[in-house]
This record gives sequence, structure tokens and C-alpha cells, in this order.
Amino acid sequence: MARIVMKFGGTSVGDIERIKRAAARVKTEVEAGNEVAVVVSAMSGETNRLVDLTRNTAAMHDTREYDVVVATGEQVTIGLMSMALQDIGVNARSWMGWQLPVRTTDVHGSARILGIETDELIRRFGEGQVAVVAGFQGLAANGRVTTLGRGGSDTSAVALAAALKADRCNIYTDVDGVYTTDPRIVPRARKLDRITYEEMLELASLGAKVLQTRSVELAMNHGVRVHVRSSFVEDEGTLVVDEEEIVEQQMVNGVTYAPNEAKVTLRNVPDRPGVSAGIFGPLADANINVDMIVQNVSEDGSTTDLTFTVPRENLDRAKKVLDSVRETIAWSEMTADPGVVKVSIVGVGMRSHVGVAKTMFQALAEKGINIQVITTSEIKVSVLIADEYTELAVRALHTAFGLDAD
Amino acid sequence: MARIVMKFGGTSVGDIERIKRAAARVKTEVEAGNEVAVVVSAMSGETNRLVDLTRNTAAMHDTREYDVVVATGEQVTIGLMSMALQDIGVNARSWMGWQLPVRTTDVHGSARILGIETDELIRRFGEGQVAVVAGFQGLAANGRVTTLGRGGSDTSAVALAAALKADRCNIYTDVDGVYTTDPRIVPRARKLDRITYEEMLELASLGAKVLQTRSVELAMNHGVRVHVRSSFVEDEGTLVVDEEEIVEQQMVNGVTYAPNEAKVTLRNVPDRPGVSAGIFGPLADANINVDMIVQNVSEDGSTTDLTFTVPRENLDRAKKVLDSVRETIAWSEMTADPGVVKVSIVGVGMRSHVGVAKTMFQALAEKGINIQVITTSEIKVSVLIADEYTELAVRALHTAFGLDAD
Repeated sequence: MARIVMKFGGTSVGDIERIKRAAARVKTEVEAGNEVAVVVSAMSGETNRLVDLTRNTAAMHDTREYDVVVATGEQVTIGLMSMALQDIGVNARSWMGWQLPVRTTDVHGSARILGIETDELIRRFGEGQVAVVAGFQGLAANGRVTTLGRGGSDTSAVALAAALKADRCNIYTDVDGVYTTDPRIVPRARKLDRITYEEMLELASLGAKVLQTRSVELAMNHGVRVHVRSSFVEDEGTLVVDEEEIVEQQMVNGVTYAPNEAKVTLRNVPDRPGVSAGIFGPLADANINVDMIVQNVSEDGSTTDLTFTVPRENLDRAKKVLDSVRETIAWSEMTADPGVVKVSIVGVGMRSHVGVAKTMFQALAEKGINIQVITTSEIKVSVLIADEYTELAVRALHTAFGLDAD
Repeated sequence: MARIVMKFGGTSVGDIERIKRAAARVKTEVEAGNEVAVVVSAMSGETNRLVDLTRNTAAMHDTREYDVVVATGEQVTIGLMSMALQDIGVNARSWMGWQLPVRTTDVHGSARILGIETDELIRRFGEGQVAVVAGFQGLAANGRVTTLGRGGSDTSAVALAAALKADRCNIYTDVDGVYTTDPRIVPRARKLDRITYEEMLELASLGAKVLQTRSVELAMNHGVRVHVRSSFVEDEGTLVVDEEEIVEQQMVNGVTYAPNEAKVTLRNVPDRPGVSAGIFGPLADANINVDMIVQNVSEDGSTTDLTFTVPRENLDRAKKVLDSVRETIAWSEMTADPGVVKVSIVGVGMRSHVGVAKTMFQALAEKGINIQVITTSEIKVSVLIADEYTELAVRALHTAFGLDAD
């Protein structure tokens, strides 16, 4: 007997037939003698519909009222899922965030979970009851409903698994696991049986849509074994676990790319204290996320060139912000390139292997791909290249690191 | 300064434009210095959509989970209404049933309100805040969400007005008040400026769609002045008040008709104790609502003929139930007529006027309309006639009692 959390995302509960199929999977786990908590998202499309209603009512709106509206999506699903379970003979009841409660901060629209009360759920597990819990929502200390932000149901599921000390947290989604790279670009991409939290975290923050970044952080901090698997097929998916649980470590486990980047270069920026703050402070204030940053000293030593990336959709806004601070930070020239992509290799094995970066740069050089910017972390190397080389670069790296399937 | 409850039904909040229009009306009351609580229904069509989802998930479903699903309709509206109010500069916040709370019985799907906590609302009135409260929903003692049944938002509004000791409860709807009869049948129908609780109650239970029966009962018991008015025009509507507030009382204030009735006659029923219970008990058990009942003694005095009406949609089921008890209640013959209508006149003035029934019967006789069954109450006379005479009868009575507009 195990205690498990099963999380079904929007496409997995996208219509009533799919809710019934998910319910059947829950029944299988219950019949195997497991204690089960189910976490569900809103039916696919529903959150967008609700968000549109709020936008059309008032462009600038109270996020507390936004949360009242959008939290209804998950509420509908828990009621329907509980009915579907009861209909096939499974004892189940629904729980809204405020009912458990799932306590959160009061940052409406992107609240963080502070804790989940589980005594009542555990008591009811003892009576054979399945808990069907609304993902994405919680309760602030002031008694108002909060939501966790997009993809927050993953976080709800992992937090519930942590609070319940569950043996594992199954995330059912529309892909059947985590791949070495995007199978649409590399047909020989392989599904990984296991991946470490750290790698998953890098992949998630690089834009892999499989798991929300915060949910991976939470799983890592609480040691929750997360199993990413398909809602539609029975195959084993990918287990996200601690590094110790992975016996044979590859040097690189994933090649990923972040499209829709833009590169900004400021030439001849005065090289004195406070300049970086004077540039990146206003960008942060404007909610523009700056990613790769490199700084080169100019020939005369008194000025520097500064290059960094921003999301392509924010480029025009970023240029305006930078123009507005030109009076105080007197650079000579600003150039912008919206045609770049960040390609990264990720693997905890890098820590103990030398020469990973060299292999990467060689593989790209052999294809004639020019590297514009490089950044590294302990388990990741990222390069910025012209976006027309995206597929070529990803395929070359996938092969170079021995990731191609047989 | 007054304290008022403003209730907007489904068509009055049917889309975002209408929500904004309703918000503008709220603003007018706030600017006049009033303390305002707004009660809203689900956007029109939304409750039906949610009910369909539950039906398609499981034909026989847990009413507790049904309530979880359908309560979301009003939750969406309170969020949007609060945003719309804030957007035009009105301080407002939303309240779900569980947040106040609105305490109810635990009869899910048709719960009754037991009480509403209003201390916090009244405190916030003092700060100039408008309360936007979800109609139709509440909280049972076990912490689960309940709904009040169709049309329950009227009841929520009146109950809130009673709890707040509000000066009046404005019900905004898609008609502009209560009419002497159905204007589609009688173009000269008049809008009533005032009507008594008792008359409104009779009209509601006779099928007038303006107010839910329970809301009128509640208003009568707590002396809540209810003002029925249009959401779309500014005209005064109809005030539902105590009899004492109506100076010049008409003999009859309304002519109404209940279509879709069916008449059942059982001939030569043994005239002995327990027979009525043996017939009407099983019908009640089958959830068939029996309305007009008359019993005539037969020639020999040992048997009786029993005639009564049931909703037309229940006629086949009623016949089956009656057949099933024929062994114990040995009547000689059962006849059924699905082509009947109940036409009623209503007015508290009847109490002090004689000859009302006579005037009614004469008016019908003059048009050659045969009366099949008669029932009376203190402020109502109802007759059952062939349904082909519906319009003719309603018009004749409207004229006979001096209700035609000039």
C-alpha cells in the first residue's frame, strides 16, 4: 500500500469523457490498495475564458476579484471528478482550497503555498475515501481566495504530496514523459526514465512545458518523488528524483532551446560603479526579465560594452526604458537583434566531467554556427546563436552528447 | 440615507455590457448616499451549462458535488460585478456564501437559509464599501457549499435585506413590474404600483415568474419592502408591501392562469375513511404535486367521485401510480383530460367584498365557458376550464373586475 497524489492537467480533464478516463485510472490505484488524493486543473480552455471575462470587464482590475473569478475553473472540475468517481463506485469527495485549507500568501494571482492542513484527508483515507482537491487555489490569512498563477496546479499537487508525506506524486499530462530534447526537432529524442530535480529545474526554467518551475523547486526541497506520465497511454513516464537515485549518470541529459529571445547591446557604457544598477533596475521595474548578461571592457578601459537578452515581446518596451535612462547612463550606441535563440545543454554529470563546454563549442563550430553569448551554471551551458540555426544546433548537440536513440 | 439591497437576475447580468449597466445603477444609489448590498445571479445560460455538465458526468449524482459545480456561476458574477464597480470608482468587494457566511440547512440543491452574518458588511458600509454577494448559495453546518434551488437568488436578496434590516430590496428583472395579468394575452393589462405580500404569494405560486415563492414568504415574515423593477428602464416598478400600506384596495388585483394542467377523475370510489390517504399518499410519494381536489357524493351515498389536477407532464406517471393502488381502492373508472387550464383571480380586497365569485362565474358564463372544478382560498378563486378558452376567460375576467387600463 502506498499513499499517492495523482494530478490531472487541463487537457487530461478537457471534457467529460476525459474526466471519466482519469477517474478510471484513479480507481485502478484505489483497487490496488493505495490511499489517493487527486489534484485537478480547470478543464482546458476554461481558465482562458474566465481570464477574458475579467479583462473585458476592466482592463486594470483588482487581483482579489480576478482570483474569485478564475478559481471557479478548478471548482467545476473537482465536482465533476468526484461525481465521475462515485459513479464507478469509488468513495470520493471534493475539496476547494479554502476548505482544507491550502494556506497561501496574499499575493493574489501568484500566491505561494504556506502550508496545507491534511489531518481530515488522512482520517478519511482511513475510511477509504479519495480526496479530490482543486489545484491552483488557496486561502489567504484574510479569508480571501487566492490563485497560484499559471501552471499552479503542479505546485498544488507537489505541495499536497509533501504535506501528506506521499510516496509519489504522479503528474498526468499530454506528453508521456521528459525527453532528451524536443521530439518535433529531433525524431531520435529519447524519453528519460529518470531525471534529477536540478536538471528538471533547469529544463523547466528554460521553457520546457512539462512541469512548472516552482513545483520542481518544491519537490526538490521536500524530496517528493514526481512521476511525469501520459494521461492517455499506460506507459511508464519519467521519474524526477534525487541525484542519489540515479545510478549511471550521463554527462548531458537534455538539449533545450528558448526561442523568442532578443539581444540588446549598449556600446561604450561608462565603466563606473552603479551603472549596472542604473540599467537593470529600471528594466526590472518595468517587469522585463533580463536573462544572459555579458560585459566586455573596451579598448581604452574607461568604457565597456554590455550585451544582454530580453524576451522578444518586451524588446520595444525595453528600448524605451533604456532610452529614458540615457541621460544618466551615457552609452554611445544601442543595437538590438530580435533574431536570436538560446540553446542549452543540461546535466548534473557536468559536475564530474571536464570538457563538456569544449564538446559543445566544437559541435557548433563544425556546423559553422557562430556563438554570440555564453553563460554557464553548475549543470548547464547556454549559448546565444542566430535563430535560423536552431534546429541544426539542437540536432548537432543531441548527437555530440550521445543522446540519439538507437 | 437608506440601506438597500439591489438584486440583479441572470438576464440583468447576462453579458459584460449588462453587468456594467447594472454597476452604473448601483453607483447612482451609492452617490445618493445609500448603503448598498448587491446580490447577483449567474450570467444567463450559465447555470444551465453547469447543470448539463453534472448530468452528463453522472445521471444520478451526489447533490453535494452538484452544489460545488453550480455555485461557481454566481461566484463568477460577483467577481466581475466588483471589478465593474471599482472600474467606475465605487469601492466594492465580493462575498461568496461561505465567506459571510450565509448559513443554510444541508439539503443540497434546495437548501433553506437559516441566517446571515452581517456585522462585517455593516462595518464596511461605514467605510463606504458596497458588498457584492453571491445569490443562490450558502454554507451548511458541515462546511460544505449549498445551493438554494432555482430562483434562489431572490430568496438570498430578501434574506440579506431582512438580516441587514434594509429599508428596501430592489429586484431588477427583465419585466418592469407586476401586472394585473399577462400582457401578452391582455394588451390592456396594467402595471400595479403596489401589491400585498399575500397577493404576490398567490401569484408566484400560480406560476407568475416575477418572484420566487419562498422569497415572497420571507419578505412577508420579515416585513421586507420588495421593489420589483426593470433592469433596462428607469421607471418605477411594483412595490410589494404590507396590506396596511395600500390605501385604496381593489377587489381583485390580478388574473392569472396556470397552463399545462391535467384533470383526473376516479368514479365510484368507496366512501370510507382512509381512501383519500390511499390515493394521494402514493401520488405524493411519487413526487406528483396534486392541486385542485373536489369530491362529490354519488347517488347511492356509498361511493363518491373524486376529481383532481396534476401537472400535465406527470399525467402518465400519475395514471400508473393510480393503477397500482386499484386493488386496494376499488374505483369503477378512471378518466383523464390533459386539456385543461386553471384560471384564478387574486385580491386581498375579496375579504371585505361579497359577490366576487358570483361576478367571476357570471363573466365566464356570458362567454359560454363551462367551469369544471372550483377551489377558493381567502384571497383567491380558481376555476378549471378547457384550455382552448384560456385567453377568452382571462380577458373576460380582466374586464369584469375593472382592471383594464384606460
